[in-house]
This record gives sequence, structure tokens and C-alpha cells, in this order.
Amino acid sequence: MGNFQEATALTRGPGADVFTVDLDPQWTVGGRMHGGYLLAAMARAATEVGPHAHPHAVSASFAVPPQAGPAQVSVEVLRAGNGLTQSRVRLDQDGTPCAEALLTLGPLADDEPYWSGVTPADLPPEHECVRVPAEAPGAGFRVDLMDVVEQRLDPRPLGFLGGTPSRRGEISGWQRLADGSDWDPLSLLVALDPVPPVSYDLGIPGWAPTLQFSAYLRRPPAPGPVRVRMRAGVVAGDRMDEIAEAWDSKDRLVAQATQLAGVRLPA
Amino acid sequence: MGNFQEATALTRGPGADVFTVDLDPQWTVGGRMHGGYLLAAMARAATEVGPHAHPHAVSASFAVPPQAGPAQVSVEVLRAGNGLTQSRVRLDQDGTPCAEALLTLGPLADDEPYWSGVTPADLPPEHECVRVPAEAPGAGFRVDLMDVVEQRLDPRPLGFLGGTPSRRGEISGWQRLADGSDWDPLSLLVALDPVPPVSYDLGIPGWAPTLQFSAYLRRPPAPGPVRVRMRAGVVAGDRMDEIAEAWDSKDRLVAQATQLAGVRLPA
Repeated sequence: MGNFQEATALTRGPGADVFTVDLDPQWTVGGRMHGGYLLAAMARAATEVGPHAHPHAVSASFAVPPQAGPAQVSVEVLRAGNGLTQSRVRLDQDGTPCAEALLTLGPLADDEPYWSGVTPADLPPEHECVRVPAEAPGAGFRVDLMDVVEQRLDPRPLGFLGGTPSRRGEISGWQRLADGSDWDPLSLLVALDPVPPVSYDLGIPGWAPTLQFSAYLRRPPAPGPVRVRMRAGVVAGDRMDEIAEAWDSKDRLVAQATQLAGVRLPA
Repeated sequence: MGNFQEATALTRGPGADVFTVDLDPQWTVGGRMHGGYLLAAMARAATEVGPHAHPHAVSASFAVPPQAGPAQVSVEVLRAGNGLTQSRVRLDQDGTPCAEALLTLGPLADDEPYWSGVTPADLPPEHECVRVPAEAPGAGFRVDLMDVVEQRLDPRPLGFLGGTPSRRGEISGWQRLADGSDWDPLSLLVALDPVPPVSYDLGIPGWAPTLQFSAYLRRPPAPGPVRVRMRAGVVAGDRMDEIAEAWDSKDRLVAQATQLAGVRLPA
């Protein structure tokens, strides 16, 4: 159960460039399908239509949360050729549009960076970090995702667990797929949308539903865990932007994401 | 000529939720329509369908560059209600899909931030910055956009003009609309996609076409100029990510953007 490949497996039809995915209840947070998991299934559909196996960029809107169970994933290619493919993917359930994504796909080079302005996440070794259980104390709901993604958080900014958030606006952790498989450019979309939301570290309780999400996949990840740092940008007017970055076990930046999420600010 | 409202004016039809825009050759860079300008016209169409006047988030794929002249802009609402609208907008020209965008729209609050982790752009006063002419020396092509957007760049990192880029990966400047109108959440989409690309400051010549672009509009901007800072993230494998942030004349962050662009690295 909870195998990533099986959980994002697609069957063809009904129709051309349409697929069916059986959304797996293991990949949920408080009963809601995890956004990164949905995107991974949608991106897989895009790789099935056209010659390119790897997404470079994925931008998505989350409209209506789907339930576990069958959903339709439809792909339209906007532009093919010139070494890349650009597609739109839509996830519908029972005729309701749940999410749409725009993708740029191509061959994913493993070149060393020409230049980087990004500082790697500073994180204690994996064994010194704190495993997040599916039944997190005080969460008030079950995070089934934590049974399929083994996440160990940097304990230093976890004061929010005891009611004293650090207010640095940053939560970092190690992540592995619990099925023992290595990360790939599709499953990294799961890693880039970690729980809990970084708003917990800012003293903002409650869920932070993703409105829009954009990810860039930069290199194929090396085997082993990834470490993901999530930082808040600006929290204002019931909106928060968050930036996530993922480094692989060889300490290379492999993926980046940003999202705009809804928050309910304390009165 | 070059008035932003006129250049993004829409006429209804042909069909429901379809508009025609007459793409204005003033809003071009080297003969190509500017991406932020295209997005502004697309976002305007989204505001015409549904009750919400302001985009909160805009994510777009640029597939095929359109030419100046008529183009069709089609809106599909994915979800309406709950204080926000989520839509997809497509720009077609002569039956070819040129760009698609996913938008979240709603009322744009003017609340002070609850928390911010973003450092304001450090920029000399506007009169000490350098106006970018449409006929930039050595550019090799005409940037008509610079006749409709008055941009004054921080002179400190402009060594690339003389062949000695600073390699800090950052270019900042003041921007005003040359028609004298104030910035609004739609025209800010133009400001968030400044020229030249920040790759110039990294010693990478040539154009950097945007593949995907995402913007968040955070507050209605105050009257007066905005200052925009653009920073490179990682440049690797012919891809560069860039982050742009815009502050208004009251020194408030009003908009943010990220893009993945193509670059051709020096051999």
C-alpha cells in the first residue's frame, strides 16, 4: 500500500489523451488529497502524451478537492517540438474540474550549475531530526501522507508544537518515500509540498490550502533522501506565499517550488 | 500611443467568454510581444468573466509568440464562489495556441502584512538611476517596450554594458508607465517581467525566453513609480529561474513573480 508508482498509475481512456487515475486515500492530509500527489499524477499523464519524460516546470490551480477514487486526467498539447513540449492537464472527478496544470516538459539535463544564488538548507543529520507521525499530537486530524512519505523535521524550529513558534517562517526536513523507492522528477512534486504548512512556525493555526503552485524540476535526483526547506515570503490579507527547495543526497538543488496559500490569521 | 488601458482593451466575441485584443506593437522586445503585457491582457479577460476584479495569482505557459494584431482571448471559469474565482485563459492567434494562464481572482485587500520575510530592494533614488532607451547601445535590437515603460536601472550592477558583468545575479530598477497612469494589479504584470534578463548580469548574452511565469499580486499599489528587483536563482542546463519583487512608492511589497526561462550558456 502507498507505493508511489501504483498510486499514480494511469489507465488509458475514456478518449484520446485521457487517462483514469485511482486516487489513493493514503496520499491525504486530514482526509484531503495531497496537492503534490495530485500534481504528480497529472504530470505523469503529460509525460504519456508526447516524447518528453520529464517536467521542467509545472504550474497548477487547485479548484475543488477531489475525493479518493477514480478521476479523469485529460492532456492537451499546446506546443510540441524544439526540444520541449508544453501541455495543459486537467483533473476532473464526476464532471467537476478539480485542478488544472500547465507544464513544460523536456529532457532533464544533469549539468552542474553555471551559477547559483541559492544557499543549501542547513539541517541536522537525518537521524537527529524528528519523524512526523500520521497521528501528530495536537493536529486534530490524521495525516495519512506521513505513512507513505517518511519526513524527519529539523527539531530547532519546532517550538510551535509546544505553542511557542520560532516566527522565523522556515520549516525544513528530510524526506524519503516509505516504499523504499528513490525520488524522481515526478515524486519530487510531493516532496515540494510538505506538511505542516510553514504558517505553523508563524503562530498561525489551521490549514493553509494551496490556491496556486508552481514547481521547477532542475536535475534528476540522486538516490537517497532529499532535504526540503520551506520558507514563508509575505503573509498578508489571508494569503501567504511559500518557497520550497529540495536538495538531493549529493547536496545538489534538484527542485524548487512556490505556492500561494490561503491562511486564516489570528484575530 | 502605448496607453496601457487601450493596449489591453478587449472587445467581446466571437462567442461567450471570448474576447478579441488588438496586440499593440509598442509592447514588444526585439519585435516579440512582451510576456507581461500578454498576461495583463489575459488577466483583464479573466476579470471580465466573474465578479472579481483583481488577480491574486497568475501562472502562465508561453508556447508560441504571437504577432502584433488581433488575437482571441478565451476564459473558462473552473470554480466560482467562496470569495474567489479560479479561471483558465487562453490566447490564440489564427487558431494557434500562443499562451495559457491559470488565475485565482478575488478582492485584493490592502492589509499591512502580518509577517514578512522579504527584504526591500536597495536602490538609489530614481533620478540617480539610468533610463533604459528603446535603442539600447549594443543590444542589437529595438526594445519598443522602453518607450511605454520608463525604466531606470540601478547603475551599480550595469557593468555588463561594458562587458564586465557583476555576476551578482541581480538587476533592479524603477518603473513608471510612460502614459502617466498609475500602476494597478494588471499593469504590474508588465513590471514583473523586466528587461534586460538578469542573465546579462551573469555574463550570459542573448535573449532568455520565458517558458513559464507565475505572479502573485499582494496589494493594490500606491500611486507613483514601483521599484522592481530581479534576482537569478540557479542557472543550469540551459534553464534559469528568476525571482522578481515589486515595491510601491510607499515601500510596500505589492507583487512577486518567478519564471523559468531558457538561456544559451557561453561555450
